Amino acid sequence: MFELHPQLEKDTVTVGYFPLSQLLISKDANYPWFILVPQRKDLTEIHHMTEADRHQLLKESCLLSEAIVGAFAPDKMNVAALGNMVPQLHLHHIARLHDDPAWPAPVWGAVAAIEYAPEELQRRIKAVVELLQGDDFRAA
Amino acid sequence: MFELHPQLEKDTVTVGYFPLSQLLISKDANYPWFILVPQRKDLTEIHHMTEADRHQLLKESCLLSEAIVGAFAPDKMNVAALGNMVPQLHLHHIARLHDDPAWPAPVWGAVAAIEYAPEELQRRIKAVVELLQGDDFRAA
Repeated sequence: MFELHPQLEKDTVTVGYFPLSQLLISKDANYPWFILVPQRKDLTEIHHMTEADRHQLLKESCLLSEAIVGAFAPDKMNVAALGNMVPQLHLHHIARLHDDPAWPAPVWGAVAAIEYAPEELQRRIKAVVELLQGDDFRAA
Repeated sequence: MFELHPQLEKDTVTVGYFPLSQLLISKDANYPWFILVPQRKDLTEIHHMTEADRHQLLKESCLLSEAIVGAFAPDKMNVAALGNMVPQLHLHHIARLHDDPAWPAPVWGAVAAIEYAPEELQRRIKAVVELLQGDDFRAA
């Protein structure tokens, strides 16, 4: 059975569920930073997925990117499957702005994470969830 | 008309062509590091692609990952579309090893690039090209 990796559990808040993936938001308030985790046991690499699952993940990734763009008007989306620390396949979607603290470097290891004010976290979640409604997405 | 971004031209060597993407290898010898660039003018984000192009890019990405795994037996694939420096959409595919110079950090900005010995560059190119033959792939 699929279970979210404990490190992802610790570093994120669950936003909701697509048909394939669990949608998380990082607790690092530096960036609007969302993560898709396909709910498949022992999955570590995109190329290990079935073609149907690959297409579904890509669909969910693009719906999420469009919602993030709609909510935060970033200058660039960063989309990445790294997994060097957490092997469970997870796909980062980070809204990057020319004035964010890491720009133009990638976010990993760039600056220390900062904590959200609870209302700011809820504001970011709500902004994305509102744009995902109707896309086979169920809010947490 | 599609033209490869001058910075990618400078930092890579062309390995060949899939139906959609030009395949490059980074000149940084620290890692087996390949890059797919969909040959579409003014494309910057995956979610801007047509569904047919998205599926083709994903297919080429998975064929490439499988070839890289076959050639280099990495501990983890890193697959990422960042584009903060070079806006032209390009998808990194990096074979990561537990003893590579950046592990477990992402490769960008981790350590200075090192130059290939020409025969080592050709060896890496050949190892991947041999595994891509027959996949609608044309070597450069």
